[in-house]
Amino acid sequence: MEQPLLLLVLDLTGTFAFALNGALTAVRAVRVDIVGVIALGMVTAMGGGIIRDVMLVQPPATFQDWRYLAVAAVGALIAFAFGHNMSRLSTPIEVLDAVGLSFFAVTGAMKAVDFGLGPVQAIILGTITAVGGGTIRDALLGRVPSVLRDGLYAVPAFIGAGIAVLSSLFGLYGAVAAVIAAAVCFFIRVLGLRFGWNAPVPRAWKRRDPPATRR
Amino acid sequence: MEQPLLLLVLDLTGTFAFALNGALTAVRAVRVDIVGVIALGMVTAMGGGIIRDVMLVQPPATFQDWRYLAVAAVGALIAFAFGHNMSRLSTPIEVLDAVGLSFFAVTGAMKAVDFGLGPVQAIILGTITAVGGGTIRDALLGRVPSVLRDGLYAVPAFIGAGIAVLSSLFGLYGAVAAVIAAAVCFFIRVLGLRFGWNAPVPRAWKRRDPPATRR
Amino acid sequence: MEQPLLLLVLDLTGTFAFALNGALTAVRAVRVDIVGVIALGMVTAMGGGIIRDVMLVQPPATFQDWRYLAVAAVGALIAFAFGHNMSRLSTPIEVLDAVGLSFFAVTGAMKAVDFGLGPVQAIILGTITAVGGGTIRDALLGRVPSVLRDGLYAVPAFIGAGIAVLSSLFGLYGAVAAVIAAAVCFFIRVLGLRFGWNAPVPRAWKRRDPPATRR
Repeated sequence: MEQPLLLLVLDLTGTFAFALNGALTAVRAVRVDIVGVIALGMVTAMGGGIIRDVMLVQPPATFQDWRYLAVAAVGALIAFAFGHNMSRLSTPIEVLDAVGLSFFAVTGAMKAVDFGLGPVQAIILGTITAVGGGTIRDALLGRVPSVLRDGLYAVPAFIGAGIAVLSSLFGLYGAVAAVIAAAVCFFIRVLGLRFGWNAPVPRAWKRRDPPATRR
Repeated sequence: MEQPLLLLVLDLTGTFAFALNGALTAVRAVRVDIVGVIALGMVTAMGGGIIRDVMLVQPPATFQDWRYLAVAAVGALIAFAFGHNMSRLSTPIEVLDAVGLSFFAVTGAMKAVDFGLGPVQAIILGTITAVGGGTIRDALLGRVPSVLRDGLYAVPAFIGAGIAVLSSLFGLYGAVAAVIAAAVCFFIRVLGLRFGWNAPVPRAWKRRDPPATRR
Repeated sequence: MEQPLLLLVLDLTGTFAFALNGALTAVRAVRVDIVGVIALGMVTAMGGGIIRDVMLVQPPATFQDWRYLAVAAVGALIAFAFGHNMSRLSTPIEVLDAVGLSFFAVTGAMKAVDFGLGPVQAIILGTITAVGGGTIRDALLGRVPSVLRDGLYAVPAFIGAGIAVLSSLFGLYGAVAAVIAAAVCFFIRVLGLRFGWNAPVPRAWKRRDPPATRR
């Protein structure tokens, strides 16, 4: 089944951004070699979609298509070669990453709808598609996945997936609804980055958080 | 296929207890936000069953049924809201968790038998159903899963799954055998908690363990 | 489908070596009990093949065959019983582990070819078959998988899988090609161990690596 060209381009852009961002995170966090950089970049880019397809008992779609593998590998190799010198590019890379997040959340949720899952399950699978790769990467780096700790990463993905699934429940899903869903996810993510928004934390941690209590 | 009501109630009770206990563990161990608490609670409750179903090349059963998702989410949300104040409830929560362990071990093993796996494989899959969710949670928290380190957690699950599978080999599996298998698992687990039982450790660590050698 | 006896013996030898080596790594790295030693040994031995089969949407082959389970469990139990006293055997165990690596890379890649995957995907899946088990083990031990950090482990597996897949593209795959592919993987791995070869690291880490800058 051939995708429309625009969808393919967006999907490959998201894959590239995830691989680049994932590999950069790995390069900066721990000492890994070229095998680690490429593996962690590709896991970040493709891990979420693989979890989704495993849950749907389908062959992993991106893994079967050499274009995704190639784009993910190139993104990771760029991080390997130029990672020491890319700190000025943090903002454009994070914006690209937000594009990938938005796109994966919407397409992941709609794939789950196509396979007959209920709306709640489809929203969860869309969110997992968007955040699963980074979660596996962080687990392999031996640290608590950042999506579970701070920032707004799963929340915008959940909202974007939710808008797409709700629109399909009312028979309104189409190019317009997909763009709106992805745009809402994108803007929440980018605003969250800009203003340092966080999701609520349990009360036990709130008490411990203020610097004054840490002396 | 509709389950009998009693089975469903027990299964949902175990799911609730696992989600609550898993989310409480997360809240106490590291700083996670509401996304992390819910995700880790749901992973603890449903991860073992998902691994089992992936190994059986089946769609994950609990994920398809919204009641499991809802019960797991509620358990995790309770931990989020009241986790700072639940230390007095440790014992009842651990007892509920032991109910979940016993129930998941027996039903997990019998599902594997139903799908034609051999007895050894079915016992292993039953054990994985019971302990797999907590193992993934601990891996995501960046610590060695407690099931691999101390206490008796996998051992009672293995014994309970073993009794259920053996009874089915002799054509004796039914409500009575299931209750006996789950009860044996439950009592070993609870006695192990009460008396601080541990599984044997390798000799290399025994030598290092006594506090005297740590000075 | 019955395998030829030689193939089966080689496959079980690799499984045994992986379980022994994986369990020894666990015993030496952290305090785990007998459950942890057996679980980590079996995960090391069978994890790579399970990931491969999940990606191919097939029932995990080694898990279905009790001989693999038994051999892996025995390897792990030997590590549990004698691990404190096996440091003299490091070299033979690492050579056996290299046998397993070579064998799993080639058979893993060819299984992917048999299921109709493209050559790049088959080479990646062969590599994952060879290194996936140790990667899961290290993630469960809460440390960055050594395959992502140093030494040559994924690289020889990738080359061995590549030779096997290329030979099949030209219709030349057979016993001779399989032996050559596995032998090349084996010798690169053993030479890498002997001479301390590493894969390249990102430039950011090269600068930080020399001991002089660490003072």
